[in-house]
Parts: sequence; C-alpha cells; structure tokens
Amino acid sequence: MLPFIRSDLAQFTAYKPHPSSGTAEPVCTLFDRLDTNESPYDLPPEIKEKLAWTFQQVIESNRYPDGGHETLKEAIAEYVNESANLSSSGFTAANISVGNGSDELIRSLLIVTCLGGEGSILVANPTFSMYGILAQTLGIPVVSVGRNESNFEIDLKAAQSAIEQTSNPPIRVVFVVHPNSPTANCLTAAELAWLKSLPEEILVVIDEAYFEFSQTTLVGELPQHPNWVVLRTFSKAFRLAAMRVGYCVGNADAIAILEKVRLPYNLPSFSLAAALVALQNRQLLLSSIPQTLSERSKLISALSPHPALEITASDTNFIYLRLQPNTYQPVDAALKSLNQKLRNEGTLVRLLPGGLRITVGTPEENTRTLTRLQAALANLEY
Amino acid sequence: MLPFIRSDLAQFTAYKPHPSSGTAEPVCTLFDRLDTNESPYDLPPEIKEKLAWTFQQVIESNRYPDGGHETLKEAIAEYVNESANLSSSGFTAANISVGNGSDELIRSLLIVTCLGGEGSILVANPTFSMYGILAQTLGIPVVSVGRNESNFEIDLKAAQSAIEQTSNPPIRVVFVVHPNSPTANCLTAAELAWLKSLPEEILVVIDEAYFEFSQTTLVGELPQHPNWVVLRTFSKAFRLAAMRVGYCVGNADAIAILEKVRLPYNLPSFSLAAALVALQNRQLLLSSIPQTLSERSKLISALSPHPALEITASDTNFIYLRLQPNTYQPVDAALKSLNQKLRNEGTLVRLLPGGLRITVGTPEENTRTLTRLQAALANLEY
Repeated sequence: MLPFIRSDLAQFTAYKPHPSSGTAEPVCTLFDRLDTNESPYDLPPEIKEKLAWTFQQVIESNRYPDGGHETLKEAIAEYVNESANLSSSGFTAANISVGNGSDELIRSLLIVTCLGGEGSILVANPTFSMYGILAQTLGIPVVSVGRNESNFEIDLKAAQSAIEQTSNPPIRVVFVVHPNSPTANCLTAAELAWLKSLPEEILVVIDEAYFEFSQTTLVGELPQHPNWVVLRTFSKAFRLAAMRVGYCVGNADAIAILEKVRLPYNLPSFSLAAALVALQNRQLLLSSIPQTLSERSKLISALSPHPALEITASDTNFIYLRLQPNTYQPVDAALKSLNQKLRNEGTLVRLLPGGLRITVGTPEENTRTLTRLQAALANLEY
Repeated sequence: MLPFIRSDLAQFTAYKPHPSSGTAEPVCTLFDRLDTNESPYDLPPEIKEKLAWTFQQVIESNRYPDGGHETLKEAIAEYVNESANLSSSGFTAANISVGNGSDELIRSLLIVTCLGGEGSILVANPTFSMYGILAQTLGIPVVSVGRNESNFEIDLKAAQSAIEQTSNPPIRVVFVVHPNSPTANCLTAAELAWLKSLPEEILVVIDEAYFEFSQTTLVGELPQHPNWVVLRTFSKAFRLAAMRVGYCVGNADAIAILEKVRLPYNLPSFSLAAALVALQNRQLLLSSIPQTLSERSKLISALSPHPALEITASDTNFIYLRLQPNTYQPVDAALKSLNQKLRNEGTLVRLLPGGLRITVGTPEENTRTLTRLQAALANLEY
C-alpha cells in the first residue's frame, strides 16, 4: 500500500461495471443486454440527427459547458411538476440540481451530510449498491438492515432501532429506492409512514430512477418534508444512459448546498443538449413504456407457474426472480449456474446474492429470455 | 441552515463558473472570451462531422458508456510516452486514470489521501483555485504559502516549514501547476529539487494542464517518484473543454486506487469518443499551437513597454499582467476598473487579486485586446 493512501481504503472493493462494458463492441452486440435496466431502444433516428446537427452547428467543442444548467433545470422542473400533477408554480429551477448521473448526486449528498465523522447512512438490503460503495470511498459508515422475505418491505423495526441506537456517528441519511432495485417493489404505506416519522436532522433520499415505469412519485411530499430529496435519471426511460444525466429535486436550501459542492462544469455540453432534447420529445420517448409494461406482464405470467421459481410483482422495467429452496443444491450455487447458462446462451442478466434481476427488453429479447430460462431450469435439475 | 448539512459548509463559497456561462447564447458570442484559457478554435468541421457520424451510427444512447475506458487509456498512454520521448514500453493503460475533467481527478486524489482527518494539503498562491475549493468541500484543511513577487517561485522556505510544522493533520498532498496558472511560469530548478526532497508519504500532484504550450513535462520523472502524479487535460490545446476529459498519469498502484474510487460510468460515451478522435488527430489539432505562441510573443512585446504594466514571461496560452504600484490609486481598485473597462468594450479576462490573466485568442481577438487595453490604461489615468 502506498503510504499517502488512506489506510481504510486498502480493503475496499469497487462497483463492477456490467460485464459487457470493456469488452470489444462486436461481443456486446451478440448479447441480449438485460443486466443494467437500460431501455432496449436507442433514440429515434430523427432525434439523433437533431443532436448531431446541434453538435456540428451550435456546440463549441473548445468552450467550457454552461456551468449553470439553468435552461435544463427549468425544463426538468416543468417535467417534475407535470409528473406529479402539480401546477407550474410548483417546483422551479431552484429546486433542481443536475449531476453526472445520479451517482454524482449520491456522492454529493454524502459529502454535504456525513463527512468529518458527522454521520452514518442506513440502507435496507438488497438495494442499489452504489449508496454503500460511495459511502465507503468517503469513509462513511454504512448500517444495513434487511427486508421482509415475501414482500421486500424494509425491516422497519430493525431500521428504527438502528436509528435510535447508532451513535458515533449517528445515522444522518436514509437511502430508499422507489421502486426498489433489485426487488422491483414500490414503498409500502408502512415504509412511507416510517419515513415521515424521521426527525428533520435525518436526510431521506428517495431514488425514483424507475419513476416512469411505476408512475408513482413522492415529489408532491417534498414541500412538507424539507429533509427529503428525490433523485431521478435520464438513464432509464429517457434512453440516455450513455449521456450520464441525473437530477435531484428538493428544498431550495438543500439544492443550493448541492450546487455549491458539485464540480463547476460537471456535465459536458453534449449531455446537457441531449437531456434537453429528450425532455422536449418526452411524449415520443416515453411512448415505448406501455410496451415495456405489457412485456413485463408477459414475462411474469409465463414464468410464475414454474415450480422452481418465485417471481414477485414488479413496478419497474425489470423482474426479480428467486429460486424456491430445494434439498438438492444450495440456492446461491443454483442461481450462479443459472446466470452462467443464460450467459452462455447469450442473455446477460444481473446475478445478486438472493436472486436474478432481469431487464425487460424488446419482445424478441424477452421471448429468448423465456426460452433460455426454461431450458436452463430444465438442465439445472432443480 | 438545514440540520442535516455539515456545519463547516455554512461559510463555504463555491467556484464561480466564468461570467459568460449561464448568460444567453447571443451575449456570449458578442464577447472575446479570453477568461478561461480555452483554445480559440473549435474542432475542424471534418472532425465534428466524423463525431456526429459516430454518434448517429455507433453510439447507443440508451446504453451505459464503457466503464473501463481501456481503448482511451491506451491511446493516452501512447501520447504520454510520445510527449516525453519515452519508448512505447514506457507508460501503459495501467498508468492512466481518466476523469470528468481534471476536477474529478483532483477530488478523487483528495478523497483517497486526506479524508477522515488524515491529511491537509499545501498550495502556493496565486494558483488554480480548485485545489483549495475542492478540499474545503471535503472538510480538508488547506495550508497556503506565497510566491516570489518577481519570478513567482514558491516560497520554498515557507513551504518546507509548513511541511515540518503542520500536524493534526499533517500535509499529505502538495499541488503545483507546471506551468502555473495564473502566473504562467514553469517550475524552477529549485522548486523541482524541493519536490524531489519530499518524503514518500506526501503525494505530489503536478498539474500539466498547459503542457502542450510549454512542451515541458515531468512524466519522465514518475518512475523514480511513486508519490508523484501528473494531471493533464483535453480542455485546452485539444479544444475539448465542452467534453470534460482529464487524465492522471502515475504509478500503477496509485492509479488502481483512483480507478476504484471514481464513479463507475464517469464519462459519457460521446466524451470518450471525442477524446479518442482528438488523439487520433493530434497533429492537426495541435498545429495551431505555434500561432498561439507567436501571438503570445506579440502581446507581450506590445504591452511590455507600457510604463503602468508589469508583464512576465509566459510558458502557456495566456499572459499574466500586473500593474506597477503608483501613488494615485490602490492597485486592486485599478485592476478591477481595468477589468470592467475591458468587459464594457467586449473582452472578457480573468480578474485575480494580484493581476489580470488574459488568454491568447485568435489574431483578431489579440489585436482587439491590445487596442482595448491601451485605451483602458489611458482612461485609467494610471
């Protein structure tokens, strides 16, 4: 270990970008990439053409990007109001901060709350792993609780007791995903009531990365809860994962602090332009969502009868698949083998400690997912 | 102040993006933008066309970017070797980490060394302000020393004494710019000897943002100094400020840690493609540098005789202009007034506590700079 590196980083394991990245392009395109919950559809050619034109005619490559993001923030505020049926006087640009993906916003939220031994964070596993990983890079302690095995509700008794008993440093941030990844469920009424009961010195981060699929949002609650913020992204339903644009909606004072600590030119000009064009064309881009939802139903209906599988409802663009415990082999080994068999056949899915997370792709991809999954399960002798 | 925000952030002042950003586009184009040391030239149309084609035909907007950056890192390593006349077996991709501008790399370097009360940083003012600003956002103490008034050499006696006397936490990182901004000078032999004398538990960050203008690099020293890293950027000579791509060259172990803590998809696909294309076309893109250097000479020769001005040599794409002290008005007020007069005439430059930093622009812009500066000085009754 180099002597100038923080001693607590020695054991740290980074987030692994999904297996297809880093491999050569032709390999990528041979796979059905159903492991990162992307939209299966690129932007339509006419929008790509418009953006290509914008790059050639409007963007000056040699000039720093707009560091204020004002136009994009106004457009996002309008969309957020619309998404929650709020009047246009609801949120404004002052309630929005834009990040290099939600990842940068998560890091900023951790930086402004917990550094310097001021706070720990609370997560309920399984959930999006970046909260814990980014906290670790900053030396921030992570307290984890579990979830109910059947409906994935956070173990609220354990969570409340963690809040009461964690000190040195106390819990300062609670991260929830709504709907959760990988378990695909929205927050329950009990979870919501618990979040509302948290004191104002605890920041509640509600990650609505999959809002466009769930159509359930908590942004309408933000005015009553100055200690809540909502994260959203252009990487899923808006088809812009390549551009890295996420945003945070919240109380203007909290947003002002996020704006202060972010890197001044955190978003390239092309990403800013792409997010704006995506919002302007949201009707077109989001028109593929009904298909995703009906394909999701198709997958769930086809897989649910299988005796080896346990499939729960989904409010998102992916399904979470677990294996029924059996006496022949341990569940984790069987999941690993299933994941490998799917990969060998050309379908990439996400292997997690308790299950497989499978993105809803195009109808053709989903048909292959079904065929390959059923064949793999047969060969698994599970 | 919101109760979940770190108390030490209350007083924090953020980096101000340059005045032209955030204003409407037509205003921007009315100014000679000589305040951020950008290249005055956009990419040539044929390169923009190639990138536009790449976006339309190759990049999948809906897919996450390559999170490994392998191809770009290999191309950068080749360029770094070439830039230091090293054989191609010199640096490899394992010696390179790519960031969302150098800003992200600076933040990562601070995170891996100083957090958790493990270190302070040392800077010599005036210098690039982001080292101190990013340290503050992370609650990391900043120790500042001054520079020699005539040649801008770091006050090495003060620096050495800061290293010896700072404890709780000790200095863990020293930041230098080579050549320095805003003073435009390369590191001197004495500064270099001092940096070499620093113990291995202190990280030395050498920011070579302006390398292509100075043609002086310290990357050849890295193998002998595992505690040194070099930062470079595509934002200046490579004309890609809009794309936000910087890189760090260093010891493979230090780079591995930077790679671990960076955001997994920190660079959009389009930025990765642009940096790669820029490297592939480096002969063409860097062919404008001789003009910049001769324009710089022209500016310095024309301004040096003026009795009110003090102009020093420059190894970069900007000049640093100070005012001779006089008895009629304080220097800082005169600088402020000069800056405002230039702005009123349509030339944006960077006002700093001790002087003005003026980017070398196109020949037409530089001619206007001279005319406007001479008129402003005459009106200043200085």
